[in-house]
Amino acid sequence: MKICETGIDRMFIIKLEPKDDILESLTLAAKENSIKNGFFTAIGAIDHAKIGYYQLDQKTYKPITLDGDFEVVSCIGNITLKDNSPLIHAHLVIADKDGHAFGGHLLSGCLVSVTCEIFLLEAKSQIIRKLDDKFQLSLISLD
Amino acid sequence: MKICETGIDRMFIIKLEPKDDILESLTLAAKENSIKNGFFTAIGAIDHAKIGYYQLDQKTYKPITLDGDFEVVSCIGNITLKDNSPLIHAHLVIADKDGHAFGGHLLSGCLVSVTCEIFLLEAKSQIIRKLDDKFQLSLISLD
Amino acid sequence: MKICETGIDRMFIIKLEPKDDILESLTLAAKENSIKNGFFTAIGAIDHAKIGYYQLDQKTYKPITLDGDFEVVSCIGNITLKDNSPLIHAHLVIADKDGHAFGGHLLSGCLVSVTCEIFLLEAKSQIIRKLDDKFQLSLISLD
Repeated sequence: MKICETGIDRMFIIKLEPKDDILESLTLAAKENSIKNGFFTAIGAIDHAKIGYYQLDQKTYKPITLDGDFEVVSCIGNITLKDNSPLIHAHLVIADKDGHAFGGHLLSGCLVSVTCEIFLLEAKSQIIRKLDDKFQLSLISLD
Repeated sequence: MKICETGIDRMFIIKLEPKDDILESLTLAAKENSIKNGFFTAIGAIDHAKIGYYQLDQKTYKPITLDGDFEVVSCIGNITLKDNSPLIHAHLVIADKDGHAFGGHLLSGCLVSVTCEIFLLEAKSQIIRKLDDKFQLSLISLD
Repeated sequence: MKICETGIDRMFIIKLEPKDDILESLTLAAKENSIKNGFFTAIGAIDHAKIGYYQLDQKTYKPITLDGDFEVVSCIGNITLKDNSPLIHAHLVIADKDGHAFGGHLLSGCLVSVTCEIFLLEAKSQIIRKLDDKFQLSLISLD
């Protein structure tokens, strides 16, 4: 376990529109507003889901694609710096018309159907990610 | 995508009691404390669930009612102003005795069985909702 | 419903390492940094899940153990004081290789496989938990 104490900076309220890609929109919002670190929660609805499951043995994300309309019942994520640019890492929980829940790593391809409401809290830190050789993933570095 | 930068105001810790309706309690808490904007996360337990799935073709929420005891494994939501009054928009994930997860839009009728612990962060903004003609829903307006 | 208004203090960014127990690590982080109250959100991955379902009739948690690799798609929780020591109360949503979601009360035994990224916001309050006779659980006391 590594821990970093920091302060709190700005809050942002972000509203996505139909056809917006959640991951790409969040990345753009972070870049345009120079948000280096922070976390967010979001709720909304999508009509195309693409989520990932990390396969430890293959060191790649297995993409899970789900068509149809889903409620975004939870989207939790964070912003950190990768190669001096803000990187979004988020996980998603969606629910279908019968309330059944599915979840995974947020990939590009989750497209807003109605809206997506994001509340983002900026941290004063400048935490970075570094490529982890073992997992072939960019992990938070607090060393 | 629309984005609004704001500041952070008060934090509230709210504890719901058995038989409290989550949505109605949150609405009351916002009104009594003049909370205009903000977001919250909550966990707890309920013995009656009523969640919604938005039907794009019918422009109405299909209610999903689930009886029995459930853990509220995630409740994420926000507060904005609708007709000068705070409106709660939240999505819920619940889990049954075998750990199976269900989710949807928080409707009135989710009744606390043991407790519900809510941490709420107030924003300094005064973001409002306006009726969207296409979806017949009150969506956040950042114009 | 009981409500407590408070202010916001520090933010912490916590990174868990492989084999870290999520609940025990969070408890340690709170103790070592004298965090008395607050809330957090987390995402990550685990290779052993132990979640609880509270059985109202038996007043005990039924443990649900799931082996295999899971994405931690949502971990929401809070910190309050129990007998002058910080106590973590958190609920977890995990997803398997097909995206199916499971959830419950976070118990000791959820072991990190790759990483777990926690963003924690400290409150300025000193809210305590007291044993509730009816439920035999330590509930938040805002009296």
